[in-house]
Amino acid sequence: MAYFEKVLKDPVHDTIVVDDPWIWRLINASSVQRLRRIRQLGTSYLTFHGAEHSRFTHSLGAYETMRRVLEQLKAEFGWPVDDRDRRLALAVALLHDIGHGPFSHTFESIYPVHHEHWTRRIILEDAELASILAEVDHQLGHDLVGILEKKDGHPLIQQLITSQLDVDRMDYLLRDALITGVSYGRFELNRILRSLALHDGQLLLKASALHTVEQYILARYFMYTQVYLHPVTVGSDVLVRQILLRAGELWREGRLADMPLELRVFVDEEGPSVSVADYLAVDESTLLYAFRIWTRAGDKVLSDLAQRFLNRRLFAPIVLPAEPSQEQWAHLRTAARALGLHPDYYVSGRESAIAGYVYLGQGISILRPDGSVSELSRESRIVRSLVPDTEYRLFLPKEMIEGEGPVCERVRSVLKLP
Amino acid sequence: MAYFEKVLKDPVHDTIVVDDPWIWRLINASSVQRLRRIRQLGTSYLTFHGAEHSRFTHSLGAYETMRRVLEQLKAEFGWPVDDRDRRLALAVALLHDIGHGPFSHTFESIYPVHHEHWTRRIILEDAELASILAEVDHQLGHDLVGILEKKDGHPLIQQLITSQLDVDRMDYLLRDALITGVSYGRFELNRILRSLALHDGQLLLKASALHTVEQYILARYFMYTQVYLHPVTVGSDVLVRQILLRAGELWREGRLADMPLELRVFVDEEGPSVSVADYLAVDESTLLYAFRIWTRAGDKVLSDLAQRFLNRRLFAPIVLPAEPSQEQWAHLRTAARALGLHPDYYVSGRESAIAGYVYLGQGISILRPDGSVSELSRESRIVRSLVPDTEYRLFLPKEMIEGEGPVCERVRSVLKLP
Amino acid sequence: MAYFEKVLKDPVHDTIVVDDPWIWRLINASSVQRLRRIRQLGTSYLTFHGAEHSRFTHSLGAYETMRRVLEQLKAEFGWPVDDRDRRLALAVALLHDIGHGPFSHTFESIYPVHHEHWTRRIILEDAELASILAEVDHQLGHDLVGILEKKDGHPLIQQLITSQLDVDRMDYLLRDALITGVSYGRFELNRILRSLALHDGQLLLKASALHTVEQYILARYFMYTQVYLHPVTVGSDVLVRQILLRAGELWREGRLADMPLELRVFVDEEGPSVSVADYLAVDESTLLYAFRIWTRAGDKVLSDLAQRFLNRRLFAPIVLPAEPSQEQWAHLRTAARALGLHPDYYVSGRESAIAGYVYLGQGISILRPDGSVSELSRESRIVRSLVPDTEYRLFLPKEMIEGEGPVCERVRSVLKLP
Amino acid sequence: MAYFEKVLKDPVHDTIVVDDPWIWRLINASSVQRLRRIRQLGTSYLTFHGAEHSRFTHSLGAYETMRRVLEQLKAEFGWPVDDRDRRLALAVALLHDIGHGPFSHTFESIYPVHHEHWTRRIILEDAELASILAEVDHQLGHDLVGILEKKDGHPLIQQLITSQLDVDRMDYLLRDALITGVSYGRFELNRILRSLALHDGQLLLKASALHTVEQYILARYFMYTQVYLHPVTVGSDVLVRQILLRAGELWREGRLADMPLELRVFVDEEGPSVSVADYLAVDESTLLYAFRIWTRAGDKVLSDLAQRFLNRRLFAPIVLPAEPSQEQWAHLRTAARALGLHPDYYVSGRESAIAGYVYLGQGISILRPDGSVSELSRESRIVRSLVPDTEYRLFLPKEMIEGEGPVCERVRSVLKLP
Repeated sequence: MAYFEKVLKDPVHDTIVVDDPWIWRLINASSVQRLRRIRQLGTSYLTFHGAEHSRFTHSLGAYETMRRVLEQLKAEFGWPVDDRDRRLALAVALLHDIGHGPFSHTFESIYPVHHEHWTRRIILEDAELASILAEVDHQLGHDLVGILEKKDGHPLIQQLITSQLDVDRMDYLLRDALITGVSYGRFELNRILRSLALHDGQLLLKASALHTVEQYILARYFMYTQVYLHPVTVGSDVLVRQILLRAGELWREGRLADMPLELRVFVDEEGPSVSVADYLAVDESTLLYAFRIWTRAGDKVLSDLAQRFLNRRLFAPIVLPAEPSQEQWAHLRTAARALGLHPDYYVSGRESAIAGYVYLGQGISILRPDGSVSELSRESRIVRSLVPDTEYRLFLPKEMIEGEGPVCERVRSVLKLP
Repeated sequence: MAYFEKVLKDPVHDTIVVDDPWIWRLINASSVQRLRRIRQLGTSYLTFHGAEHSRFTHSLGAYETMRRVLEQLKAEFGWPVDDRDRRLALAVALLHDIGHGPFSHTFESIYPVHHEHWTRRIILEDAELASILAEVDHQLGHDLVGILEKKDGHPLIQQLITSQLDVDRMDYLLRDALITGVSYGRFELNRILRSLALHDGQLLLKASALHTVEQYILARYFMYTQVYLHPVTVGSDVLVRQILLRAGELWREGRLADMPLELRVFVDEEGPSVSVADYLAVDESTLLYAFRIWTRAGDKVLSDLAQRFLNRRLFAPIVLPAEPSQEQWAHLRTAARALGLHPDYYVSGRESAIAGYVYLGQGISILRPDGSVSELSRESRIVRSLVPDTEYRLFLPKEMIEGEGPVCERVRSVLKLP
Repeated sequence: MAYFEKVLKDPVHDTIVVDDPWIWRLINASSVQRLRRIRQLGTSYLTFHGAEHSRFTHSLGAYETMRRVLEQLKAEFGWPVDDRDRRLALAVALLHDIGHGPFSHTFESIYPVHHEHWTRRIILEDAELASILAEVDHQLGHDLVGILEKKDGHPLIQQLITSQLDVDRMDYLLRDALITGVSYGRFELNRILRSLALHDGQLLLKASALHTVEQYILARYFMYTQVYLHPVTVGSDVLVRQILLRAGELWREGRLADMPLELRVFVDEEGPSVSVADYLAVDESTLLYAFRIWTRAGDKVLSDLAQRFLNRRLFAPIVLPAEPSQEQWAHLRTAARALGLHPDYYVSGRESAIAGYVYLGQGISILRPDGSVSELSRESRIVRSLVPDTEYRLFLPKEMIEGEGPVCERVRSVLKLP
Repeated sequence: MAYFEKVLKDPVHDTIVVDDPWIWRLINASSVQRLRRIRQLGTSYLTFHGAEHSRFTHSLGAYETMRRVLEQLKAEFGWPVDDRDRRLALAVALLHDIGHGPFSHTFESIYPVHHEHWTRRIILEDAELASILAEVDHQLGHDLVGILEKKDGHPLIQQLITSQLDVDRMDYLLRDALITGVSYGRFELNRILRSLALHDGQLLLKASALHTVEQYILARYFMYTQVYLHPVTVGSDVLVRQILLRAGELWREGRLADMPLELRVFVDEEGPSVSVADYLAVDESTLLYAFRIWTRAGDKVLSDLAQRFLNRRLFAPIVLPAEPSQEQWAHLRTAARALGLHPDYYVSGRESAIAGYVYLGQGISILRPDGSVSELSRESRIVRSLVPDTEYRLFLPKEMIEGEGPVCERVRSVLKLP
């Protein structure tokens, strides 16, 4: 075969190396290119201004990390024996996020769609993708879906793409840390790669890398507590959710003039009847554009919420030890109404689960020098200390909290704010 | 005054420090927040996948660089004496890009708008911005415009925001280099800051920093030749231009069903009658959404071009020493027609000026130890070597060059391609 | 006063800024310059080849960190009010390591000298240093010693130079991490600096920086477990100790021909009669040179140990859960003798305390938003998890463990090695 | 063969991978370990405090760079075909600096020794090294010497270790830049590695990497002008030279009591009779120790010079366009005498050649897309601009220039200093 190599510059991995022509064709498939229009961290850029990167750059990074993992495992353990396994692993890394929609988790919470469902359908039904995969081999698409759905077969590749220590997390922690400018998310990728071991058909980490994997787990912990679950970001997600809920409601009631064609299918119909082409036609530019036209909507609630998002007048988060009581909720809703704000859209809250490390059958296995296998949380006191926790966040318009007058004073007193 | 401080994390400067409440209000003005929806490097992300950052992050970076410059000049030279000058300098750094539209230079080449014109109008006419500035002082907006238009007054601030060595370039070179992953654009920002000198009312660089400024000029040279003028990026700009031209033509002829409301004002009317609000309502999500709906246009040219952009089937660039001859153009257009491609939209080229360093009255002044002043190009052989150059790039659909059959062979032979 | 500024390039802080002429004179004092000949991490360079940096570079880094801390505290809290406090703080950061000798802790374990003792004497008795300090003010030296000895007065400066969160640790963690190439030791210095608070005359950290300080504590934990207490490094320290012990013994018994003049004073006499000039004349080049000449010593033990050190044939560390039993010791000593190795010098062990975080009255205080003060370990589960631990390491010549024959097999069986 | 792998952490390359047991034995040979006691940049640490790293760390880095080059060339061009070539290339990279002595170039200018000469002898004569090499193959040592002496045979390996673009320079530019904290020396190592090409048995760079190699050449240029040839460093070398000259003179005249045994062989005898063991016994700790004991020498010149070095009271450099005239020299010598300074040791100067890029038969060859080969300076205007230049630096005790009184005023007037 002729020598083929494309090298892309990358801020995290320096270079991303593509040495299979069909991987290059996958990268250039329209369903993969679409990921350029979906941000990796949703609304996080409203909290950390650097977080403007897309799922496309992360997908390339996950692919590159997988490529390096395979290089390492091949050199030390002779795996994958079969080049088909290598192809599956590379493709699964590149395509693992292909089912995500705009503002992914929020979008999914409104519409009856799940990115896992769409991942499957896009891989199997998108003509361009299916044809590139079929050229390699006719079972490839089917097996990719099997791996992503954690079905039988290919347990090692499953572990590499979706486990507590997979190429997905390895890339996104490093990438999100670099681009937001926080230093939490860093860990020694090279050393982790070199510490992977295959043992009895399972992927393990050599015990000599215990502290390196502790560092990785901590990186994950800090990125979750400090970046991914930042209250301002969660509040921005809530804002997106309220906009979409309100717009859907108005549309179904015939009270909204403008609804982009691409979004109607989600609002009118049930998820399962949305076609793959329909789904792929929607990205974050669709939503941002919709928000723009909704700033002109006749409905005051919708136009106000849309303006808040575009102009970054976000909900203020108030962190509470637990969910407010019935009575507190009632007070807050009354106060909102008194200020002319619709309580269903302006008073809300959410419990956020602080990421910990729990061993539930699926942990990180450590290979001890004597050949025995243990679980990370048994080996590391630090990791054991990361028990999950929760926190309640209330989201209100800033003016409800900071304003003057008896209503706002009442809000502050209900919430025991100074 | 109460202590006020907001600290933002930034991948280039680590932290961005805001210690004036009114600067914080400026950052949160909707006209500044809009810059989050305009990419700093236009279509470059299609060549360097990391280049997804916005003019908003760059504006914060230019502000922070200015803040540090002022800190340095104040400590060593006691300037600015007047706190008003400090305010002007900070605001001008934050707002210098406020007039940019989506895919800035391409947009401007189609519509009779110029970002300098809009910068002026937005600062003076946008109610929110004008009110924040007026709270500080009533002349501030007027003076900011004067500085950005290089009118009389505030020569030092003018130099700091728009000269061969200004905070705008200092930030964007470092930022674009980091995020694309190339190492070319790096230079020692801290040392440049420490080497600035005020002398006879002029901003100079101490001669001890000669090599540091050489490094900066080279960073600029490499970023231009390797990133900003990359043929694939220029070809993507050409594609955007052809899409907008075609859509405008069809719309004016009544042959296009769908044109986003926000864009109509640019297509229907003359620039000067576009209002500030009209202009601010347009960003890159508007264009991306327009491209999406145009993929369904009845016009085959428009729908094909829009699909090419969204799915990254870009024009292939062919670098030539000079523009093709009349005869060559004719051959290429005939070939396009033979392949069913409209030559006005599928056959085009552009001369690219390779950035050099020319001293045209406005150079970088060097302060020698003996107190005399010289110009950088006189002091540095390397800088003198960077004379400008030009290159001609032809942009054609890949299939015209790589296809089989006599037409494509003719194209290759006309262009002397292998 | 005339503008004075010296800027040094630094790999950790980018630049180190000296803006007081007397600080510049301190840096150039021979007792400070001597620190260039004492490595920051002792024998660690034999484990991590990059760790070749000196206490001099660290002292500059601690100074720079202090300078930035003061800049921050001054801007936000107006402290230090008095310029004399600023001078004390800067000088104490620069001079805090001045009493260290070659291979510091090992040297101190052999000779009756303690670096704290010498710090005091050098500051007060070294003529050059004393004169520079006296030029600033006559009490300065006396107060510096008071701070370093944690006597009454200057509690804030004491905290800044020697507490769980001081400029000493902040610099060395970052510096040692960078130069060894491990990524463990990194934390967000800038954010820590910005999070310092003065409250009721005490230095605290704002609670908003909880995760940042967790990261710092973890950086410390990882650097101790992975770098500072690396068994190979501890084994190298043991080797240095054995060499010095043996040489001293031989010298006192008149059985060693060559003992560098500079070292005799330590071997012959009691510590207190060593003069400041005697102490300052000794650095790591003295010991390395001594080791070189001892490779030619008539005593087989000494010449072998010295060669082992210079040629990096280090003791092999064996990590054990606890100290060997009497019987095991006896077996090991017998085995050594059988191999012609003097058991007193070739069979040894050491308990290493794994760094944790314990609150013993002197912790890191956290300032909560409501103005109350708490202790870090009460606020952070991760920090609480870092309870101290110990580990026993046995150090033997590699050939005792890996050799063939019944003696070595016995050693392996006694130690339960495979 | 059993899987063997040692991974060392490195600040430049992150990891250094050793996968041959005999390379590991080479690294642990005493002649290689000795390089830990010889600084990579001689006296540069007196100018850039970070530059404390040794030739040992650089040798590991050159080895690692070679390892990556070979990996790349093997994958793309199938070279080296023969594993023996791979072994030669790795060993030559690791051992290329083995002949260096303390303060290398200065030491060589005093004593009739040349590191090239010693490289040859150590490789062939040092018993430990010879035996490790002979175990691999009996011709290996001989061939290594041939490559380092640029004799017939192995032209590609010669190019990789000693040419304008070799692994030696690639590592030291990056390493010296990182550790001094300057950003000049950085270039895209990975891209250079990927751009290497083999063509007609020659090592070339693909034309697509033109700007990357320009960046590399500029990195070299800046490191030479800003770091390696820094006047303060050159002045420190001059000081070392004067100390060694004076001590040698006194010793030969019987006027010096103390001369370390290891140095006597260089002072008494002719170079060729120094044995390999004699040569290897000397490192920078020997000289630093010698300087220490000479501070107590009866000779005032020697003791003063030695103190100046140890306490960093360096000569002040004065940069002149050309060498002083006979008359100026006479004036300066007279002035020195008047101040009680021996003019032979206190008044000196040196011409420094500013590094350029000249093509003298041995340039960097560029492989154009059409398969033709050109030379870098023909392709790059920037590279052509780097013509060599010279500068004269005079070195005098600071007090001669800055002192008061008529003598110093005369010095300043002769040198036209302010």
